[in-house]
Amino acid sequence: MFTRLDHQYMARALQLAEQGLYTTDPNPRVGCVLVRDGEIVGEGFHARAGEPHAERHAMAEAGDRARGATAYVTLEPCSHTGRTGPCADALVAAGVARVVVAMEDPNPQVAGNGMQTLAAAGIETASGLLEADARALNPGFISRMTRQRPYLRIKIAASVDGRTAMASGESQWITGPAAREDVQRLRARSSAVITGVGTVLADRPSYTVRPQQWALTDYQQHSGGSDRVRQPLRVILDRTLQTPPGVPVVSAPGHCLLVAGEQHPGRQNALESAGAEVMLLPASGSGIDLQQLLIELNRRECNEVLVECGATLAGAFVREGLFDELIVYMAPALLGSSARPLLGLPQLASMSEKVSLQWQDVRQVGNDLRLTLVPA
Amino acid sequence: MFTRLDHQYMARALQLAEQGLYTTDPNPRVGCVLVRDGEIVGEGFHARAGEPHAERHAMAEAGDRARGATAYVTLEPCSHTGRTGPCADALVAAGVARVVVAMEDPNPQVAGNGMQTLAAAGIETASGLLEADARALNPGFISRMTRQRPYLRIKIAASVDGRTAMASGESQWITGPAAREDVQRLRARSSAVITGVGTVLADRPSYTVRPQQWALTDYQQHSGGSDRVRQPLRVILDRTLQTPPGVPVVSAPGHCLLVAGEQHPGRQNALESAGAEVMLLPASGSGIDLQQLLIELNRRECNEVLVECGATLAGAFVREGLFDELIVYMAPALLGSSARPLLGLPQLASMSEKVSLQWQDVRQVGNDLRLTLVPA
Repeated sequence: MFTRLDHQYMARALQLAEQGLYTTDPNPRVGCVLVRDGEIVGEGFHARAGEPHAERHAMAEAGDRARGATAYVTLEPCSHTGRTGPCADALVAAGVARVVVAMEDPNPQVAGNGMQTLAAAGIETASGLLEADARALNPGFISRMTRQRPYLRIKIAASVDGRTAMASGESQWITGPAAREDVQRLRARSSAVITGVGTVLADRPSYTVRPQQWALTDYQQHSGGSDRVRQPLRVILDRTLQTPPGVPVVSAPGHCLLVAGEQHPGRQNALESAGAEVMLLPASGSGIDLQQLLIELNRRECNEVLVECGATLAGAFVREGLFDELIVYMAPALLGSSARPLLGLPQLASMSEKVSLQWQDVRQVGNDLRLTLVPA
Repeated sequence: MFTRLDHQYMARALQLAEQGLYTTDPNPRVGCVLVRDGEIVGEGFHARAGEPHAERHAMAEAGDRARGATAYVTLEPCSHTGRTGPCADALVAAGVARVVVAMEDPNPQVAGNGMQTLAAAGIETASGLLEADARALNPGFISRMTRQRPYLRIKIAASVDGRTAMASGESQWITGPAAREDVQRLRARSSAVITGVGTVLADRPSYTVRPQQWALTDYQQHSGGSDRVRQPLRVILDRTLQTPPGVPVVSAPGHCLLVAGEQHPGRQNALESAGAEVMLLPASGSGIDLQQLLIELNRRECNEVLVECGATLAGAFVREGLFDELIVYMAPALLGSSARPLLGLPQLASMSEKVSLQWQDVRQVGNDLRLTLVPA
């Protein structure tokens, strides 16, 4: 049983964890609060891979006051020796009396090990407090640990009549500045952005995260490291390597991965000289095998992946059932029935074949509406 | 200046007026509260054309206590001799001391006359209290008085990708029972429903209002008159009179008007024998001249008109700018890019030609979303 105070402290730990939203990748976002005699004696969150875990920060702040304290952690403390030694052992050594976690380690092979280490040392343990909120913080990490693939968001900007561009391809700008800013946040929390070569050629996007206040941790803000915004991996599906080496998506800060479906040594050399990475994956139809792509992104420890592309590629992800969220920024306008569709999904012939979804969230973003749907 | 109590009593008068939402047609919905010495001494609302106005009901309830009272009326009392004599004169005769109205008569030729009658008799008058709410009660009546045309709502059921039916025409049911029930309410408050012969042939709709609890006035509920639900005029645009005389839209309770663009005496006779009315209006392109149609509906004292039709006719209304609300019931599903569009609006070629709208309301209706937009 959890008390009202337990809930309050775990809520605080979740707030702390959220401060790592844009930076912990590929690690999960984790927060920790140490409480003794009704007083918070230490707080911490994980900021960046290679840096201390949330528990370490909290224990460092608490010092001797960790002895006899309750630790609230949003994720089960690790029991394996990573770059910093197991946190479970450190909590035992610090003499905490009780450990409450929001969720166990999502990796089924190690889930519960940290809690067992603690319990074996005589520490009182409990888990499952505000678990849904803790899960919502790390959908990508959980997906990778449990399904061996990233958590996929497909993002689309459209009119009320479900159109993303005029027949000519003209599309700038359907939605307003607030929606575009919101997309920046989606990008900033993603490990990778996927697009197709068609979009690269037509719109010359860069898919970077601009260094904005919200994209920085407290640490960065206080150390003035505003140029160190983490950039998601940019993944371009480009079966025949048509991407010109000079486009922004190649030259912008961060890493650009071109996925080809066949060998083109000359083009590959030019792109590599421009700083891009090129790799081959099996082709599928006119594109790249998306299942193979996700295996590769999982291998690269990608947690959340944002699909920002044209209707054809987005339609392919939907058709294969490879998405966890569909996010539509809907502008209050009609583009007409000659305009381009939201999704290239021409195969459905009867209502029984429709793709059923569920509303997850609907809200206004500036002058547009943001609809978030998940597979039913 | 209006006091807090003034607001409270007018809010009550608006509540009363709303009880006539489904029945006053072609008259406006009006409510009245009489207050003396801080006590409500009479209340009333207009229920049905030919029956007493709201003020009469309130005065009848108040009796002698109307003397010295304040009357709160959602619409300026009439000063012309209608079926029941001018209400302004009756208020004078009853000896009320003060009259507060939410809005003046929307007919610019008589606006203010009722207030002048009252003021000339020494009654204190004020107007404009909760005016926006009063206007929202009677958009159709106001439109007819000020623009000589009905207030037009276009209602569409669609998927998130903006499709209303599969390529085959299959469309039942995109949205759920709560959305369909909500459409019943839209119909019930409308003077007329417009559709096209294509929809009549494909879906065999009846466009009737089913007698449900909410569609009845208190009067009907207490008198057991549940079979007297007012049915909107059903208007079918049918240039060459292809509507079979036996379809539900002709045979259902209420009045059915077929609008043809050319003479077809044989078909006309058959339809008239089946109970329908047939009239000719100028044709325009492949359909009926919509401006002429609205002139005719205005002549028939239609206040609110609901356009429930296929993409082609709905697109024609939008293209001509002939709509005041676009209501989209959006189901959490994708029908794919071969499915039929929300609106047949193929003429738009560049973003500068897009139809700009404004969000008026967004809410969940059952498992669907209801988006209400108005022209920008």
